[in-house]
Amino acid sequence: MTGRLYGVGTGPGDPELLTLKAVRAIGEADVLAYFAKAGRPGNGRTIVEGLLKPGMVELPLYYPVTVEIEKEHDDYKSQITAFYDASAAAVPQHLGAGPTVASLSKGAPMCDGPSMPLRARLAARFPTEVIPGITAMSGCWSLSGLPIVQGDDVLSVLPGTMGEEQLSRRLVDTQAAVIMKVGRNLPKIRRALSSAGRLGEAVYVERGTTPAGKSMRLSEKLDDTAPYFSLVLVPGWSGRS
Amino acid sequence: MTGRLYGVGTGPGDPELLTLKAVRAIGEADVLAYFAKAGRPGNGRTIVEGLLKPGMVELPLYYPVTVEIEKEHDDYKSQITAFYDASAAAVPQHLGAGPTVASLSKGAPMCDGPSMPLRARLAARFPTEVIPGITAMSGCWSLSGLPIVQGDDVLSVLPGTMGEEQLSRRLVDTQAAVIMKVGRNLPKIRRALSSAGRLGEAVYVERGTTPAGKSMRLSEKLDDTAPYFSLVLVPGWSGRS
Repeated sequence: MTGRLYGVGTGPGDPELLTLKAVRAIGEADVLAYFAKAGRPGNGRTIVEGLLKPGMVELPLYYPVTVEIEKEHDDYKSQITAFYDASAAAVPQHLGAGPTVASLSKGAPMCDGPSMPLRARLAARFPTEVIPGITAMSGCWSLSGLPIVQGDDVLSVLPGTMGEEQLSRRLVDTQAAVIMKVGRNLPKIRRALSSAGRLGEAVYVERGTTPAGKSMRLSEKLDDTAPYFSLVLVPGWSGRS
Repeated sequence: MTGRLYGVGTGPGDPELLTLKAVRAIGEADVLAYFAKAGRPGNGRTIVEGLLKPGMVELPLYYPVTVEIEKEHDDYKSQITAFYDASAAAVPQHLGAGPTVASLSKGAPMCDGPSMPLRARLAARFPTEVIPGITAMSGCWSLSGLPIVQGDDVLSVLPGTMGEEQLSRRLVDTQAAVIMKVGRNLPKIRRALSSAGRLGEAVYVERGTTPAGKSMRLSEKLDDTAPYFSLVLVPGWSGRS
């Protein structure tokens, strides 16, 4: 008898954006694994707070490094890989005994969060199932009422960490865009949008779908302070009917 | 007293992928509006079948034209615009009297389905709310267990209707890609993937998250028959940890 590993997408923040399937998986789970920053409760865990059951084992996995450091740095790569290995080694202690583990990913699994590295390391030994979540971008464009794509629009999802010239080139070459990982990249993102002629259309969304959520035209945002997980949306406009 | 218009994303097919919020909105609604092909039940309505209440008014809106015709054609544009105008004119008869209308979009609203054209025409007169759904691409990459993006990967969402050369160029210039609207474009999509050197990585998904769902490497799919709403996924691989 072995347990099952669910990779559960929690959606972008509003607990009501959990799917029925995610609620069921968490209800079946004896163990809840989630990644978090040291000293913080974990974004995914906060979203499912209301679903925790008495006696549920919590397996917090604390990141050894911040996600805002330079990812190409060798130290980052080796530390994060060792951390994923250790995390994946911690889960089978539970799975081997039979219970079901739900590992939470804020937003959608297979994009970010723990589901992907855990699944990659454990899928050969345990039954796994990935339960999709509402992506941050989908939550944000719904919240702001923006028609993001229509008809045959191209949608480009771009990391804000990208170089300014490349970002600008890609913004020229797409109908719709979502720029992720804004944070301290915001001044560069503004310049890239401006040189691509797309600044006027851009919408900034911070903590979308949570009570603290804000959405405004980027041109009306006067400061350059932004959390790492804020987004910039550039709606597509071709073939509007 | 006026009603409220919910644009509800139903997700890609599995009714368990409805969000708690979508279930609540449908539960509150007196009228259920959905687009459908003539003589067909409507994809969105099929997904929410189990949530329909006795006495609920159904407002099916039947497309006048197929979505697989050439969209740049003037006839298509004028017919579809007239159809959206007529659909939006039908909804206020219900909203004016006070009830709540849920309009269903298969997948996520603001991408496709009725929520966007209805909202664009009615948001100035009625309170509206858009409830995001699991996108088809998110449902499909979760189902197939594919880690689609990681780290600073670029994700390009491309319509299969695009010309072969442009498609190939964009496939070279991205880490991850999702090709939508496959259908009869599949032979062209294969050629574009091949000339971009990405055919070996590509995964074909048909009717993802439904009982009839299929997922396979595109190179192992021997025929070129594909439903319009099938997808091709090209996973990104940079920075894999």
